[in-house]
Amino acid sequence: MEITGKNFIGDKLSGFGKVKYKTIDPLKNIENDILFVEATSEELEEALALADAAFPIYRELSGTQRASFLNSIADEILNLGNALIDIYCRETGLPQGRAMGERGRTIFQLQMFAKTIETEDWRKNINEAAIPERTPVPKPSLSKTHLPLGPIAVFGASNFPLAYSTAGGDTASALAAGCPVIVKSHPMHSGTGSMVSCAIIKAAKKTGMPNGVFSNLNSKSYALSHELVKHSKIKAVGFTGSFSGGSALNESVLKRRDPIPFFAEMGSINPIAITEGALKKGTQQMAQKIAGSIVLGAGQFCTKPGLLLTVDGENTDAFIKELNKALKETDQQCMIHPDLKKNYVKKSDKINGLKETVEVQANKNQLDNNLVHPKLSMISGDQFIANPQFQEEVFGPFSLFVKCKNLQELEQVINRLEGQLTGSIFAQADDYELIEPLIRAFKSKVGRLLFNDVPTGVEVSAAMTHGGPYPAASDSRFTAVGPGSIYRWVRPITYQNWPKELLAKLMN
Amino acid sequence: MEITGKNFIGDKLSGFGKVKYKTIDPLKNIENDILFVEATSEELEEALALADAAFPIYRELSGTQRASFLNSIADEILNLGNALIDIYCRETGLPQGRAMGERGRTIFQLQMFAKTIETEDWRKNINEAAIPERTPVPKPSLSKTHLPLGPIAVFGASNFPLAYSTAGGDTASALAAGCPVIVKSHPMHSGTGSMVSCAIIKAAKKTGMPNGVFSNLNSKSYALSHELVKHSKIKAVGFTGSFSGGSALNESVLKRRDPIPFFAEMGSINPIAITEGALKKGTQQMAQKIAGSIVLGAGQFCTKPGLLLTVDGENTDAFIKELNKALKETDQQCMIHPDLKKNYVKKSDKINGLKETVEVQANKNQLDNNLVHPKLSMISGDQFIANPQFQEEVFGPFSLFVKCKNLQELEQVINRLEGQLTGSIFAQADDYELIEPLIRAFKSKVGRLLFNDVPTGVEVSAAMTHGGPYPAASDSRFTAVGPGSIYRWVRPITYQNWPKELLAKLMN
Repeated sequence: MEITGKNFIGDKLSGFGKVKYKTIDPLKNIENDILFVEATSEELEEALALADAAFPIYRELSGTQRASFLNSIADEILNLGNALIDIYCRETGLPQGRAMGERGRTIFQLQMFAKTIETEDWRKNINEAAIPERTPVPKPSLSKTHLPLGPIAVFGASNFPLAYSTAGGDTASALAAGCPVIVKSHPMHSGTGSMVSCAIIKAAKKTGMPNGVFSNLNSKSYALSHELVKHSKIKAVGFTGSFSGGSALNESVLKRRDPIPFFAEMGSINPIAITEGALKKGTQQMAQKIAGSIVLGAGQFCTKPGLLLTVDGENTDAFIKELNKALKETDQQCMIHPDLKKNYVKKSDKINGLKETVEVQANKNQLDNNLVHPKLSMISGDQFIANPQFQEEVFGPFSLFVKCKNLQELEQVINRLEGQLTGSIFAQADDYELIEPLIRAFKSKVGRLLFNDVPTGVEVSAAMTHGGPYPAASDSRFTAVGPGSIYRWVRPITYQNWPKELLAKLMN
Repeated sequence: MEITGKNFIGDKLSGFGKVKYKTIDPLKNIENDILFVEATSEELEEALALADAAFPIYRELSGTQRASFLNSIADEILNLGNALIDIYCRETGLPQGRAMGERGRTIFQLQMFAKTIETEDWRKNINEAAIPERTPVPKPSLSKTHLPLGPIAVFGASNFPLAYSTAGGDTASALAAGCPVIVKSHPMHSGTGSMVSCAIIKAAKKTGMPNGVFSNLNSKSYALSHELVKHSKIKAVGFTGSFSGGSALNESVLKRRDPIPFFAEMGSINPIAITEGALKKGTQQMAQKIAGSIVLGAGQFCTKPGLLLTVDGENTDAFIKELNKALKETDQQCMIHPDLKKNYVKKSDKINGLKETVEVQANKNQLDNNLVHPKLSMISGDQFIANPQFQEEVFGPFSLFVKCKNLQELEQVINRLEGQLTGSIFAQADDYELIEPLIRAFKSKVGRLLFNDVPTGVEVSAAMTHGGPYPAASDSRFTAVGPGSIYRWVRPITYQNWPKELLAKLMN
């Protein structure tokens, strides 16, 4: 399949724009050869007009029809074969294995949502019969179901070109709900996005979906993104990315005349609290597990543990040593994009530049291209509490070790934290009473709380919560992962006093 | 029980403010004698500090403990006896029967939420067992539940001093969820609010709730309300009232550093579409039913039908005549407050002042005090479509009749509407095919769709949706009525890899 570099305005390839850009091969640090054409305002309007027209048709299709569309997308993505894996690797510097794993996850998600909507159970229909004889007033019959909101704008993540981008969780859940989707392609991997878009359009045609159910807009500049989220035809927004990116888009959403759901997942430092008991039990295995989580995917995961909280005890230094050793063994890794390396260096240097910071692991060798070393720095609990700058996320293989005076101070550190996607506690069986205050503190801060486990590796299942109090997510009441994420894009409606023959049709 | 006019800062009566105000007896058009003391910023801070401290304790109580609190509130409200009914009537001009009916509804809601949380089913817990043998990576155990968000600010409605105010649906659902509540008392019925607050505090003490679980702040000025919703310790806001009031508060919410859920139910004109078939079947009964809905409670319901859509056919004028007759029979009614009468007159005059408007029912007799006549005006479908001013809600017994050329124009009128709490279709059995486009159009606009029924009388049940697309509600994904309204105040959390003995405690 040839990647044209054009936009998909519904099923039509379109490239009228004058601004063009290329993606980068971070391993070689050279530009890839495809020229992407930025979508124009006219193309955006056209995509929205198509989506708006497709919505009332798409919404009325049966669950099995939409499910066949989702399953077909999964098939078409697989049909892209190695070409997809190749462009993925050339646009991210991530290894083949990761590309294939992420493709598997993407396909699994699409199939999971297909399964979710194959029956209408997900609509949580509630039927209440009329009680005409009730006094003082008769009860009317009431039937409640869920309806899709309308066209959704999706902004993919730099670090998940497949699973959280073009046909990722947001797109799959919105399409499952009955919402047309307009993707603003991530400029770091527009080639991957183009191929996946092509698969979606192919699947839409094969399964008879209305044109406009999906569009893909290329853009490296921010203007188009803001135009998109401010547009009256967009009824909700899904975003995965940085706090600054999410906040900037939200500013535009807030300027709308009509408020719309803006679901943004925006980063987290995923604190891990470790008790003295856990350290006493043995430091090596735990250090390896945590170090592995820090450097996984070059630390480019939203769930990377960026904050390690311990009490300064007799085994703490041994643990730091083990951790340091494990991190050193990882050596150098390639980041997805020069901008990400630049930010990694800048942000970790910023923390290391603060007078309180002790650099534990700081290989100063200059690395070529987009390679980076893992970094580990250390401060005390009261230093962390005193300076909110220590809470800033460093995207990449960096973690900050906090030595607290005692468990009370560690609890205070948690209380001082902003909202997080995850929190973890490493403890031993006889710590159960001891950690109660930590659990209580974490409950107010996180969307997922782990015990003796690391936060990377987000399970795609009904019991998952991927989200959390602000700024981890813009609305903590929803998850971005798992079948439950469909509820971001639907609203309830109640039918009162309808005759049975009409109602049956309305409830699907 | 004596009404002191002071604020409840937790369980303490407090009145340090210098600004004072009185409520009005709208029937007599005189001030009631109690002097209410506006809460100061210091008192607000104190209430929030108490709520913040109460939250981690209140959150951890069992469902049965919180249920006993809610049931006890219901009991204590009943224990207020006739004194509550008296003050309610003196502050609203509404008849005793309405006061008692609304008290019954309030008590029913409290007991319904108590029942909802008596078991932990409402938390929708999902438990997934670990699969250690799964390849390529083992699956960890995952358990998902729901947690309360934290202290909630509640703004009661002018038209529901009991059921949507101090101990109304927002307060009851938030307390049920495990959230402390701070009510900003409605200045039109602060006496009623004071008595109910007293009942809540009594119940809190009797059932051993932490101090700060409830506070009640008096205020007639807007400053305190904005201070409240901007406060970092407030984690969500529930509001029932006008579009202008809701929008002004939302402006303040949007200025927060951390976004919080702002659920506002803000008014609606509740269109009723009537087919020619329905008119042909007979106009008298239908006219009486609809007229009854327009004037119910002097038209001071958020679900009052303010827009009647018909096709100009052979029975249309007969229907208007019947409707007019039925409205005339209602004669004069007292509105809740001079400000509401002033707005009713101003807003209905504004619509009647537009050159297109024909006044059908417009008794021009000047009425004393806060009495008003019902009003009915008429325009054509294209006139409605051309001028958005015809969509402005007139709170009170006013309705606008729209004569459309044909069903297509009627459909266009619906498509032109803003979001609504409800829509209704009156039709006959052989109209089923005919109304399909109307149903489709309404589905994009309303939270509740009725067939041959009027929208007033909001059933409190699991199948109810009270909400709808903006501006009917600020977030169409939630209902403000029924047990489901609890989900406005909770968020999911997932526990990963926790030992069974700890997990059991975490999931309640």
